[in-house]
Amino acid sequence: MPSYRAPVRDYRFLLHEVLDLSQYANLPGFADAPADLIDAILDEAAKLAEGVLAPLNRVGDTEGCKRAGDGSVTTPKGFKDAYKQFSEGGWLSLSHDPQYGGQGLPHVLGLAVAETFSGANMAFGMYPGLTGGASRALLAGGSDEQKDLYLPKMVSGEWTGTMNLTEPHCGTDLGLLRTKAVPQADGSYKITGQKIWISSGEHDLSNNIIHLVLARIEGAPEGVKGISLFVVPKFIPDENGEPGERNSLVCGGLEEKMGIHGNSTCVMNYDGATGWLVGEENKGLRIMFVMMNEARLGVGLQGLAVAEAAYQNSLAFAKERLQMRALTGPKNPDGPADPIIVHPDVRRMLMDQKCFIEAARALVTWTALHGDLEHVSDDEGQREKSGDYMALLTPVIKAYLTDKGFLSVSNGLQVFGGSGYVEEWGMSQFLRDSRITLIYEGTNGIQALDLVGRKLAMNGMRPITSFFNEIDAFAAGEDADARVKPFLEGLAETKKALHEATDWLVENGLKNFDNAGASSHDYLQLFGLTMLSYMWARMAKTAAAKIAEGTDDPYYETKLKTGRYFLDRWLPEAQMHLGKVRAGAESMMALDAEAM
Amino acid sequence: MPSYRAPVRDYRFLLHEVLDLSQYANLPGFADAPADLIDAILDEAAKLAEGVLAPLNRVGDTEGCKRAGDGSVTTPKGFKDAYKQFSEGGWLSLSHDPQYGGQGLPHVLGLAVAETFSGANMAFGMYPGLTGGASRALLAGGSDEQKDLYLPKMVSGEWTGTMNLTEPHCGTDLGLLRTKAVPQADGSYKITGQKIWISSGEHDLSNNIIHLVLARIEGAPEGVKGISLFVVPKFIPDENGEPGERNSLVCGGLEEKMGIHGNSTCVMNYDGATGWLVGEENKGLRIMFVMMNEARLGVGLQGLAVAEAAYQNSLAFAKERLQMRALTGPKNPDGPADPIIVHPDVRRMLMDQKCFIEAARALVTWTALHGDLEHVSDDEGQREKSGDYMALLTPVIKAYLTDKGFLSVSNGLQVFGGSGYVEEWGMSQFLRDSRITLIYEGTNGIQALDLVGRKLAMNGMRPITSFFNEIDAFAAGEDADARVKPFLEGLAETKKALHEATDWLVENGLKNFDNAGASSHDYLQLFGLTMLSYMWARMAKTAAAKIAEGTDDPYYETKLKTGRYFLDRWLPEAQMHLGKVRAGAESMMALDAEAM
Repeated sequence: MPSYRAPVRDYRFLLHEVLDLSQYANLPGFADAPADLIDAILDEAAKLAEGVLAPLNRVGDTEGCKRAGDGSVTTPKGFKDAYKQFSEGGWLSLSHDPQYGGQGLPHVLGLAVAETFSGANMAFGMYPGLTGGASRALLAGGSDEQKDLYLPKMVSGEWTGTMNLTEPHCGTDLGLLRTKAVPQADGSYKITGQKIWISSGEHDLSNNIIHLVLARIEGAPEGVKGISLFVVPKFIPDENGEPGERNSLVCGGLEEKMGIHGNSTCVMNYDGATGWLVGEENKGLRIMFVMMNEARLGVGLQGLAVAEAAYQNSLAFAKERLQMRALTGPKNPDGPADPIIVHPDVRRMLMDQKCFIEAARALVTWTALHGDLEHVSDDEGQREKSGDYMALLTPVIKAYLTDKGFLSVSNGLQVFGGSGYVEEWGMSQFLRDSRITLIYEGTNGIQALDLVGRKLAMNGMRPITSFFNEIDAFAAGEDADARVKPFLEGLAETKKALHEATDWLVENGLKNFDNAGASSHDYLQLFGLTMLSYMWARMAKTAAAKIAEGTDDPYYETKLKTGRYFLDRWLPEAQMHLGKVRAGAESMMALDAEAM
Repeated sequence: MPSYRAPVRDYRFLLHEVLDLSQYANLPGFADAPADLIDAILDEAAKLAEGVLAPLNRVGDTEGCKRAGDGSVTTPKGFKDAYKQFSEGGWLSLSHDPQYGGQGLPHVLGLAVAETFSGANMAFGMYPGLTGGASRALLAGGSDEQKDLYLPKMVSGEWTGTMNLTEPHCGTDLGLLRTKAVPQADGSYKITGQKIWISSGEHDLSNNIIHLVLARIEGAPEGVKGISLFVVPKFIPDENGEPGERNSLVCGGLEEKMGIHGNSTCVMNYDGATGWLVGEENKGLRIMFVMMNEARLGVGLQGLAVAEAAYQNSLAFAKERLQMRALTGPKNPDGPADPIIVHPDVRRMLMDQKCFIEAARALVTWTALHGDLEHVSDDEGQREKSGDYMALLTPVIKAYLTDKGFLSVSNGLQVFGGSGYVEEWGMSQFLRDSRITLIYEGTNGIQALDLVGRKLAMNGMRPITSFFNEIDAFAAGEDADARVKPFLEGLAETKKALHEATDWLVENGLKNFDNAGASSHDYLQLFGLTMLSYMWARMAKTAAAKIAEGTDDPYYETKLKTGRYFLDRWLPEAQMHLGKVRAGAESMMALDAEAM
């Protein structure tokens, strides 16, 4: 059975040292989060993740969710009790608006604990995860009455939430959606239609489930311009705001999925269900995107979180499993063989995981901080820049961290050899769970299109220009420690490749849109690599400074050596991606579909 | 439910045109395989694969194998009947020795039909696959009496076979194995021990199962020098050669695996079971490697076969699923949206699959032909060269085709979006099944070590030298068609990178063995890429010649265009792998295990 330890030490390094959150102590939210409180929160989250959620991860996989004939869904044994502890611990409210019962702490801290929960039990983490997204969408687009009615109970976790977008014939292409909303005399709507792949759509964890549903009001324009958002509670709140009449919506089936069995993925049938418009008519997508953008960061975080769990277990296995002698002579001469961690190719699989995970964590944390600064900074320029970064980096984080996260988990499984393929060891569950992250909340191909088709061009290319300037300035910096220099040089080189790829896209993507599409995947990969390179440079600088100060904590030397491996083994990928970007659309689109 | 079509057209192109088997008509086996017979065999195999095996693939996954309290194992519904058709069709005997009832046809043809069977139903294909390996090991190492007793029934498929190597504490490191063999007065041995992960170890398809078991004779030397091979039948043949007394061996459990549920993966308990020595005492590994080398090629073939199945289904889905409009304007203006095959990033995932699969198939076919020539060529130089190539390429095919095969399947799944993650669509089964191929018959890391640690240095580097000469000569050739030139140039460049990587390894791998281990993975990847590049150059030359002859079959234009995509999008990987090879062991091994 796999084990899990929350990466608390890494988060302390990132939050206190690399990002130095104390510098923002004058800002709302940050003011309430001194270092010792952050540490206490990280420790408490670790306890819950390690002691309660992780032991349920395999139970969730093997038992799965079960649907009864009446459409009710039972979650795996232990989930209900764990959810009770989770919500009573106030974890849903951590970075939520105090007006609705939230603790108002920075999102960057919320992300840190979310990694911990997803790493311990990804399927479980999706219940509060979806609730957080739904409540933020209501916060962004709901009326005061709706907020007062729903948010306190969603922020506390008493009620959970979902998002309902997909229909059988429409996934990416929401313009095709058919679910109908018919206005009623009392201002409500009757919602009718079928939604599929609704995560946490029905379950037994909470006494109400608040569905946010995209639908088309009778007579609305076709396509994406006629889509509205509705709040459709499972139980319609009564005059006291408590769950009242059962709404006419039902879980029509559970999907049999490759993984995340502990989360209920529902077919939801709405049969004249009562719902209320959220925001304006025909402007539902705008609000749903509030939720989706947050969800996309969350999915990138899941990619990282499961990779961390797989890494920890493969590392432990590699230290214990005895097979063969080291190429350079026995390292465990008294044992029957050496632990497999002595073998370079096993080490390669471990170091690839480690150097990815640590930089990916820095990237999510750094980006989440910008998500805070976008809203609370007292400097208008900073708010603009942080907003730009959030927009630019959301698709990169979603796609790159899940693409590489899945491969990272696959490396972890491979370290186990045959045991990796046997379910009881738990590595195969990590791989199966992880695979969904490349797909949901917009496939990784859609993320790449969002990056090259929308985010690059935004505001006259302001985000990418601002970002390049920041990297150039950082890479051009001096550092007293000679070991930092290769990090700055590596960053400069990788960024140069990304800049050339950007120039190529601007020139060729406008001439022929297919060029932009054809090169979007490798462009996004190169972007992700540049980001990890930047994060490694920042972490190396911080670690070297700590060493120069005379620390005797070996953590910092380890950090530098791990980063060095990244430079040696990951940076050669930059030119490859640039080469693929430049190949463009011609040979990709050369075949008629019928000839394929 | 996924569908499957045997790649008959591709095999005709490879066998008749690219490799032109007719030139070997003077050789044993080939003499009996004129083109029309080959075509008839490919068509018959296609019928069985498409009509019988493919429809059982999902049944096998969902039902799995079941073990009863007495250790007997039931295969999924339909497997027994399919196996009857399979063996009665003579498919096991196709390329087997006529002395024991085989048809004596070339192995290259056997591989072609094996791809078809694995593509239709990988788990099913493992029952005859293991039988073929076991019977060839007996052919190579058994006494005449053993061969007469076992081979006719194994060649016909009446009896099946297994290989028993792994024990709980010993996988890769066979020197640690403990299963004991105690000599008996009658010349037999009593075998006692536990073997795990025994594919096809117990089932209901045949009326006897012939286990080949590695064990240590009492008093034998420690380590790999004291391992002997035994034949241990489930039922001891009586005086008429029919299944007689039940041997004291039993399936102690079935592994719950991530995939290949239709194949029984058994814990086998031998409790004083009667066995007979195969070959000489303490020389069992040598014979087992006959089986293992064949099995390694077979696993590479599985990687390709499942990738083909996934490709076919993702292609069909991409043509049918309507979502969004093409970036360059509607292509299906009368429909609600365009088929997703119009989107460049979907096309990328399809073309990556297609250009890999077609070259991988050429590589397996070309190598299998060398496997034939090694034995039957009338030219001693050719026999030596072909033997060298088989030795050199076996680890490359096993590891590269399964590494890339798995990624190829993952691309296929991704094309399906959310449906790819839902079991009923069948794509997730392909991914789960495919994942084992990177592990069994020697993990891909072990293959890479075999390549750099043994195969490169063999006979004073004769195989790699001979191989480089062949590529240089081919790449330096002229071709009347201008479209062939980039293939020759691409091949020359890729080979140059491989040559430089080889030189680096020779220089640095001997100085520090860890350098060889550290760079083995990327060296093997670069080797595989060079092989695909060579295969594309050969296929392009053949296709261009056909076009010059005036063919109106669009197959050849499609081939050239697919290859062109390979040049654009895969060759940029060569320099990346070279860069990683040159990074060596330093940063990979820099951390103490305890610091990781």
